[in-house]
Amino acid sequence: MGDAAGHFLPGSFLVILGLWWSTRSILKYICKQQKKASSLITPKFFSRTEILEGIVIVVMALAGIIGLFSVFGKPKMLPHKEMQLVRSQHWQHVIMYLVLAMLGVTKILCFTISSLPVSLVKLMSSNAFFVEAFIIYNHPQSPILVNSFAHQLLVVSAFLAGLAAFIEFLLTKNNVVLELLRSSFAMLQGACFFQIGFVIFPKNMEHAWDLNDHINTTILATFFCAYYMLTYVIIGVNYALVSWFIKWKLSKPCPSEIQFLKNYEQQEDSEEDI
Amino acid sequence: MGDAAGHFLPGSFLVILGLWWSTRSILKYICKQQKKASSLITPKFFSRTEILEGIVIVVMALAGIIGLFSVFGKPKMLPHKEMQLVRSQHWQHVIMYLVLAMLGVTKILCFTISSLPVSLVKLMSSNAFFVEAFIIYNHPQSPILVNSFAHQLLVVSAFLAGLAAFIEFLLTKNNVVLELLRSSFAMLQGACFFQIGFVIFPKNMEHAWDLNDHINTTILATFFCAYYMLTYVIIGVNYALVSWFIKWKLSKPCPSEIQFLKNYEQQEDSEEDI
Amino acid sequence: MGDAAGHFLPGSFLVILGLWWSTRSILKYICKQQKKASSLITPKFFSRTEILEGIVIVVMALAGIIGLFSVFGKPKMLPHKEMQLVRSQHWQHVIMYLVLAMLGVTKILCFTISSLPVSLVKLMSSNAFFVEAFIIYNHPQSPILVNSFAHQLLVVSAFLAGLAAFIEFLLTKNNVVLELLRSSFAMLQGACFFQIGFVIFPKNMEHAWDLNDHINTTILATFFCAYYMLTYVIIGVNYALVSWFIKWKLSKPCPSEIQFLKNYEQQEDSEEDI
Amino acid sequence: MGDAAGHFLPGSFLVILGLWWSTRSILKYICKQQKKASSLITPKFFSRTEILEGIVIVVMALAGIIGLFSVFGKPKMLPHKEMQLVRSQHWQHVIMYLVLAMLGVTKILCFTISSLPVSLVKLMSSNAFFVEAFIIYNHPQSPILVNSFAHQLLVVSAFLAGLAAFIEFLLTKNNVVLELLRSSFAMLQGACFFQIGFVIFPKNMEHAWDLNDHINTTILATFFCAYYMLTYVIIGVNYALVSWFIKWKLSKPCPSEIQFLKNYEQQEDSEEDI
Repeated sequence: MGDAAGHFLPGSFLVILGLWWSTRSILKYICKQQKKASSLITPKFFSRTEILEGIVIVVMALAGIIGLFSVFGKPKMLPHKEMQLVRSQHWQHVIMYLVLAMLGVTKILCFTISSLPVSLVKLMSSNAFFVEAFIIYNHPQSPILVNSFAHQLLVVSAFLAGLAAFIEFLLTKNNVVLELLRSSFAMLQGACFFQIGFVIFPKNMEHAWDLNDHINTTILATFFCAYYMLTYVIIGVNYALVSWFIKWKLSKPCPSEIQFLKNYEQQEDSEEDI
Repeated sequence: MGDAAGHFLPGSFLVILGLWWSTRSILKYICKQQKKASSLITPKFFSRTEILEGIVIVVMALAGIIGLFSVFGKPKMLPHKEMQLVRSQHWQHVIMYLVLAMLGVTKILCFTISSLPVSLVKLMSSNAFFVEAFIIYNHPQSPILVNSFAHQLLVVSAFLAGLAAFIEFLLTKNNVVLELLRSSFAMLQGACFFQIGFVIFPKNMEHAWDLNDHINTTILATFFCAYYMLTYVIIGVNYALVSWFIKWKLSKPCPSEIQFLKNYEQQEDSEEDI
Repeated sequence: MGDAAGHFLPGSFLVILGLWWSTRSILKYICKQQKKASSLITPKFFSRTEILEGIVIVVMALAGIIGLFSVFGKPKMLPHKEMQLVRSQHWQHVIMYLVLAMLGVTKILCFTISSLPVSLVKLMSSNAFFVEAFIIYNHPQSPILVNSFAHQLLVVSAFLAGLAAFIEFLLTKNNVVLELLRSSFAMLQGACFFQIGFVIFPKNMEHAWDLNDHINTTILATFFCAYYMLTYVIIGVNYALVSWFIKWKLSKPCPSEIQFLKNYEQQEDSEEDI
Repeated sequence: MGDAAGHFLPGSFLVILGLWWSTRSILKYICKQQKKASSLITPKFFSRTEILEGIVIVVMALAGIIGLFSVFGKPKMLPHKEMQLVRSQHWQHVIMYLVLAMLGVTKILCFTISSLPVSLVKLMSSNAFFVEAFIIYNHPQSPILVNSFAHQLLVVSAFLAGLAAFIEFLLTKNNVVLELLRSSFAMLQGACFFQIGFVIFPKNMEHAWDLNDHINTTILATFFCAYYMLTYVIIGVNYALVSWFIKWKLSKPCPSEIQFLKNYEQQEDSEEDI
């Protein structure tokens, strides 16, 4: 991860994941409110997307691990001490991707084997974020002020995402706003990764930040809050788009489907009660 | 915000907000207990006050932002380094007011569009306080002891207000005491702003505090607790006044209204269950 | 509070309070389990003890404040700087007792005026402990190692008692084990006060502890845990005594009372549901 | 505990405890899902295992205390200062085992005397972990970097196990995933003890770690996360084995038992409601 690309990869992954989570939560919420809408999107569809999401997460985690090893494999001429440091960092990143892969595997297992408790997925996603926060917190710390501060912001956003997922796990029944909170923290973390990519590894050295200036940490904190607010704006726009899409779809209804889907609906309700 | 007026503005805003929140919570509580009282104050009235509150918050936030830019616009002769500091602080304050404006907009949207989840408002108000606490915590820190301690107290009160709002968000059903707790923390924070205005930017330089004396931090902490207790006394007096007002109003009842309002009551109950 | 007696007074007060809380919780629990037992102890009795407790707390807090002023009134020849320190500490202790008095007043009000929410009492008792923890945390800190560590333990125990009371406040329905947890933390805090009285202000100077030795902080932490375990032993013995007492009382029943008390029982149930 | 064996003993104890807890939780979960399975494993069986577990915990705690005193009894020639240090550590370890013994005694009492609240056991197990975390946190700290970091990891895992147990205590109804979380933290803590035993007291001095190298703390943190993931793999394998075992057992059913066991089932349900 020691370059810009190594931070853009997880960053874009998290932003996409956050967007996707928010979209599905909004879809679920609208389907619950408007009984008509559930004729379009069935509970089976949601459990299928969960399985698909699990597969995508596993693939992305594996891609990350392969990327790490391909970078790590290159022979570098480094003194012994620094080599050790790079190797320890390398394994930390591998662990991070592995715990993400575990989340994906848990998703696939829980939504294919019906006897497994669904709340395990929520625990696993909180675990993935907490482990990430723990690892970045225990990173070999850089002596550069802005670099370490930017990583602290990453820790904060990962911790908050984990906390939101854990609260979801404890409150057994689904709460759409809590799900949106989690997805907003995921997007926030993605934005942090991008921020680090641009600030710490600037393309254009002329406009590079002074990484030891204390004021720049203040500016980073301000950006952090601005990104957080931006995620809500994005979620709001997403909500408007999704509800408009549902309305547009419902304007040409096919009543034959409704009776057929009533069974699924009851099924879902009973699943949630468990 | 770099002067007394810049701290009095948010301070008085928060005190008024806290007072208003406590008044509405008490009104709601009394209306729930005394079914007769709900003939005076209808659920429609409460949702209208929420919208009005949203508008007031947006206006106040915009006033704050305009105030900030008008101050910032004045040409100041400062060395480059200090100019940067002032500018970074300026944007932090803008973000603070923006997140407040977002709370107002969310209030207006959630109480006009019925399909939006009402708990979003609670999440937004907790967000507003948390972002504020985060920003003040990451302020370019003053080397002056009492100044930084006073801002830490501000962080504590903002964090507690955010925490109370977040707990409210998690406990889906309304709890009057929790609402009063949140409003007491809002008032406490307002008092902290006033305290900073008076202590750090004294009008009368003769009675100015020694800002580097450690004992003064102890005195500030004592004041903080005293203010907190005072907010409960204020809420108690408020409760007595509101319940006396309701009794006085009910002494001249108009029974024709009662039947008319039963509908609203049931409506409210069903809304809360959601 | 600057002497042993000033720490023994709140210490013995907290131990008595903890014992009393645990006794009442156990009584309530047994009365709920054994329907027969509720013929002996009526719900009215419990609300009366709450009012009595409120009065006792107010009286004790006033006694503490009077004690503080009587000590403070004595003319002392101190340099200006130290006088300021003593005065700031003095007011901190006054605030601590005042917030306790507020808890007492809230108890009296909530159990006499039926329209007030009962959970306000729980919030107030958590407030009393949190304010205490906050004030001791912001005490003008002693440079003596063991002294400051002992006060940190006090902060921890006060914070935990406040947390237990706050969780009770959030979980609206009564939970006997949580009440016992709160009373055990109150006793623990009382034990800490006694510990400070004996260690920091020793009677016999020959066996005085070396207040700057790091090992003594370890020993204090060990004592802290030992006291905590002791509070559970005390509560266990208390449980055995109370259940034995109830059994002994029930061995000579007066069936005439039972029918009479059914009304109270239903009353209590409906109160708790609110 | 000042040697490898002193860390292997609690380590293996915690790993066994975690494995056992996860096995029982999985068994309970499967029995709840498959009504047929509850003909094999009766509620009485579960309460009996709890009592047995209590006895085993008491025996193990006593073994630990005896082990401590046998080591401590050996005359050592140490300077007075170091003797004091060893003695204070000794008593800390005794307290740790004592609070574990209290957990065992509480288990035995709560599952033999039916009038005692069952949630007391959960509070006690959270207490045991919290007291352990508190004591290790207040250990006389080693100046060796890796040693103190390894103990901090121990504190983190003990605190997390205590937190999981405390959340279980608050959420009165059983949640299998939360129980698995607690058992995974217990296993994690056991792994930490083993890690300390191997790293701080290496058998083979040639491969000993450099205990003052900062990179080794990073590696320890990485191992910590790896162990945490491993506990989930172990729990997953455990789940597969247990469910396979239940299926295998159910393939040769004895229908005569079923009717007989219906009574127990209802008994258990009513117990859980309390």
